[in-house]
Formats: sequence, structure tokens, C-alpha cells
Amino acid sequence: MKISLDCYPCFLRQALQAGRHVTADETRLKAVLDAVAGEIPRIPPGAASPVIGGIVHRIVREIAGDDDPYRRVKAENLAEARRHYPAMKDHVARSENPMAEAAHLAIAGNIIDSAVIPECDIEREIFSLADRPLAVDDTQRLCEALDGASSVLYIGDNVGETVFDRVFIEEITAPVTYVVRDRPVLNDVTVQDALDSGLGGLARILPSGSASPGAVLPECSDEFLDLFEKADVVVSKGQGNYEALSDAPRPIFFLLRAKCPVVARDLGVEVGSLVLRESHRDSDRSQPFFG
Amino acid sequence: MKISLDCYPCFLRQALQAGRHVTADETRLKAVLDAVAGEIPRIPPGAASPVIGGIVHRIVREIAGDDDPYRRVKAENLAEARRHYPAMKDHVARSENPMAEAAHLAIAGNIIDSAVIPECDIEREIFSLADRPLAVDDTQRLCEALDGASSVLYIGDNVGETVFDRVFIEEITAPVTYVVRDRPVLNDVTVQDALDSGLGGLARILPSGSASPGAVLPECSDEFLDLFEKADVVVSKGQGNYEALSDAPRPIFFLLRAKCPVVARDLGVEVGSLVLRESHRDSDRSQPFFG
Repeated sequence: MKISLDCYPCFLRQALQAGRHVTADETRLKAVLDAVAGEIPRIPPGAASPVIGGIVHRIVREIAGDDDPYRRVKAENLAEARRHYPAMKDHVARSENPMAEAAHLAIAGNIIDSAVIPECDIEREIFSLADRPLAVDDTQRLCEALDGASSVLYIGDNVGETVFDRVFIEEITAPVTYVVRDRPVLNDVTVQDALDSGLGGLARILPSGSASPGAVLPECSDEFLDLFEKADVVVSKGQGNYEALSDAPRPIFFLLRAKCPVVARDLGVEVGSLVLRESHRDSDRSQPFFG
Repeated sequence: MKISLDCYPCFLRQALQAGRHVTADETRLKAVLDAVAGEIPRIPPGAASPVIGGIVHRIVREIAGDDDPYRRVKAENLAEARRHYPAMKDHVARSENPMAEAAHLAIAGNIIDSAVIPECDIEREIFSLADRPLAVDDTQRLCEALDGASSVLYIGDNVGETVFDRVFIEEITAPVTYVVRDRPVLNDVTVQDALDSGLGGLARILPSGSASPGAVLPECSDEFLDLFEKADVVVSKGQGNYEALSDAPRPIFFLLRAKCPVVARDLGVEVGSLVLRESHRDSDRSQPFFG
């Protein structure tokens, strides 16, 4: 997905929001805004938005003087999500279709994104969301694909949401590789966050190689790209990965909440919608798509 | 009112919105964004926001190549507002307190602001708004002040809203000077717009001398400043004038809808609230305040 002109004001907004997680000093925050504004003329309209997100958050880290501005927020979100783990397991166990229910919970978990929704009340939101109809619903196709799969590449998004991913991955019998960000960016999951979410014993944890808040393919490691090409099923969580991978030449199951107007428009849904969409369902998998 | 850090992303958003009234050419719109982004490091945190609005909209006019980007929007809003004039007159005539009712209509008319609410359905909104309680309500003080006044300075805001101002001014017996912008900026009222709104026979029409979307005192003409100092009652419409005049050293009745979080916070109300607030009620009018 390419950025829209509407994304440019949002880069400044995101930078300010991220900076405020580190400092209340208006002079430093203004310096963050100035530096991001200085990048805008250098960002062409066709750029990939997670790449720009990477630039924005690098500036925030450098000027705000913290290599992980969302450290505290991530710890709080993870602690709260972990508290709900037993209730989620119970919810899934009591459902008629545990895998579908777990997938829906994993989408509902995508509300845990302090980068977009500053104060989200996880407890109140999750179970009502998990029972809400999806605006795009390829759940059956996902369950069928997972049933027959011998390898699954699962690309994670936010810390906290990771606990919901865990509940979903516990329903998957095929071996799962869980992809995390290469280093802290926004509130996105890193190797340590994945381990702290209880994913270590369930999946192989693999950094994508990209420092962007989304698995931007040209930035990803060869190991990731090899798995991305060969995995039977690829699950992509959240907006950042959708923006990075929506045009990728292979079938992908995108599980996300559409949080911004640009992404919602691209998906053809309302802002706030929950989406489980299979891309390229009819594409020819026999063709090579890299190189 | 000084700008908040939150205003900086909004300058880009406003520039894009204004530019889109002139062109759909993404290259030109990106040039507008680049130019506004280039101004951001030069705008100090303590700046007055209408001054920045003036800079932003000058850039839009120059790059988009149109000295009045909101021309069409203003004409549409004015035509629609004029259609409601008879109903508004009837509404006021049937009310128990015509002056208070007309003042509330004038506030409700402040929803006509395509700069902030892109598609506003005037017909549906107005009468329900006029009957809504105000979040700050100095209506009685305003009516008393107008009853005893021998001169009123009324500072206009958006085209279309001007017709609502007309209904209110028709209830005022004292001579009224109606202040307009010096030249087209945003969808704000100019001399011609005031005449087209039917204000010519009711009030003296005076350009403020400021090219900003708000009566920024250091930019205003001596004639305006003299009237601003001496008028028995000053009525200020809308956010732009509130931002320009909220710290001015004389009593002012501010009639507006708080449309953005920064202004709402300054007023201590929720976004969307209708406000009729007298400032400096207890200030000492015997002291000179210019000079």
C-alpha cells in the first residue's frame, strides 16, 4: 500500500504522540516536529508508509533520547493482556469453532495499539469486539488453509496483542514461525516481547530484518523472505504489516482492525472495522514471485 | 490563544484540505504540503494560530494558483443559508426572547465551516443546535449589554454563517459595525460576501486590516483598533477570532462552536460544544489597553 497525501499530516501527529511518551519538554517535542517536517519534502507520494513510519520513529528515538519510547506502554499493555489470557482460553474452549473464535480474538486484540488509540480499555473492548461481525470475513478459508498446512508464517504486530496471538497459535497444529520487529519501533513486538508473551514454547521467533513498523519486504532478511515465499500459510497482523504487504505477490491472510481512513479506504471498509481478508486467493502459486 | 504542539500536524491537514478545493493534482498538493512543512521550523510554539493560518493559506493560494480556493464552497454555503433565512426569522419571531434566540442561532450558524466540517448538512443541524444548551452561557449578560449599548462591533467569521449573523443583528437596535477579513482567506467573510449576505443595509461593513483567518490585533487597521477599543459591545464569532482575541484586554462576547481539541481545552469544554462566553467581565475598562 502506498501512502496517501493524508498520511503526511499523520506523520507529524504520530511523531508528537510518540515523543510525548518520552518527554513533556515542549522544546524537545518541537524539535521532533521540526525534524519530521524536514523529511516531508523528501518523502515521495509513492512511498511505502511503514518505511516512513520507520523514519519518523527513528527521529523520535534520536531527538527524544530514548531508543524505546513505548517501553512503559508496552509493559502495561502486556501485563493487562496477560491478565485476560485465562478468560480468553475459556472463551475459545467453550466456542463451537475454537479456531475461528481464536482468530477473531486475535483480530480483536489488534485494538491494543497505543500508537493509534491512546487509552484503550482492553477489558471492556475485547470480548464485545470478538463477537462482532467482521467487515471482511474469510475466516472459513483461513481455518481450512490452517488445517491443511505444514508450515505457518505469522507476522506479529503490537505488544499485548501478542497474547491474543498466543491463544490463536495454540489452536494451530502446524509449526508456526512468529515474526517480530528487528528492534523496538512504536509499540511493536520484538524478540523479548514475544518471549514475555509466552510465545517462546509455541513458535519459532524470527526477527523480520526490517526496522520499520511493518514487514517491508525490501528491508527483510533472506531467511524471512525464504519462509515468506515457501510457507503454506502467511498470517499478517495489523495495519503496519497490511501497509507493507498488501501488494505482495502471494496469498496472505490479513487480520486487522482498520484504524485510519487511508487503510480503511484501501480495504473498502469503514474506519474501526474488523477484517479477516485473504489476498490473492486466485493467484497462481506455481509462479515464482521474487527475483 | 497561543498554538499548541497539536496545531502543527493540523496546519498540514488544513493546507491539504484547502488545496483540494482548488486541485486534485497530487503533485501540486504535495508541493503545498512541502511548503507548509518547510514553514514549521520557523513557527515558534508561542505563535498566534490565526497568524499561522494566514501563512498556511497564503501558501495554498500561491501554489494551488487560486486566490480564493473556497470561492465555490462559500457560494454554496451562502445560497443554502439564504434559503433558511425566512425559517430563521420565523423561529426568532415566535420565540419568547427573540434576541437570545437570534444569538443562539448565530452560534449554531458557526457549524457552517467547510474548513473544519467538510460536508455539513445545514438544514438538519441548525435548528436542533439552536435549541441545544450552551456549554458556557452568558446569553443574559450579552442581551443586557446590547440593550444598553450605543455601539456594537461585530466580528464575522464564515460565509453562510453571515446570514445567521444578519438575523441576530436585525434584533440589535444599536448601530453595528460588521468586521470582515481584508481579503479571501479560508471560507471567511469578505466585504462582498457580507453584502451578498444582506448585511449592507444593516451594518457598516469594515475590513479588519488583517489577512489572517482571525482578527489578529497587531495586523489590524487603526480604524478597526479604534472601534475595538471604544465600542460598547464587541461580539466575536468563531474559532479564528477566538484564537486571535481570547487574550485581548477588553471584554468580548465570544460566540462559537468549539471545533478542535486545542480550542475546546482552552475554553474548558468538550469538542463540539456551543459557547457564548463573556471575557474579562470584571476587568477595569477605565484603564487604557493599547499603547
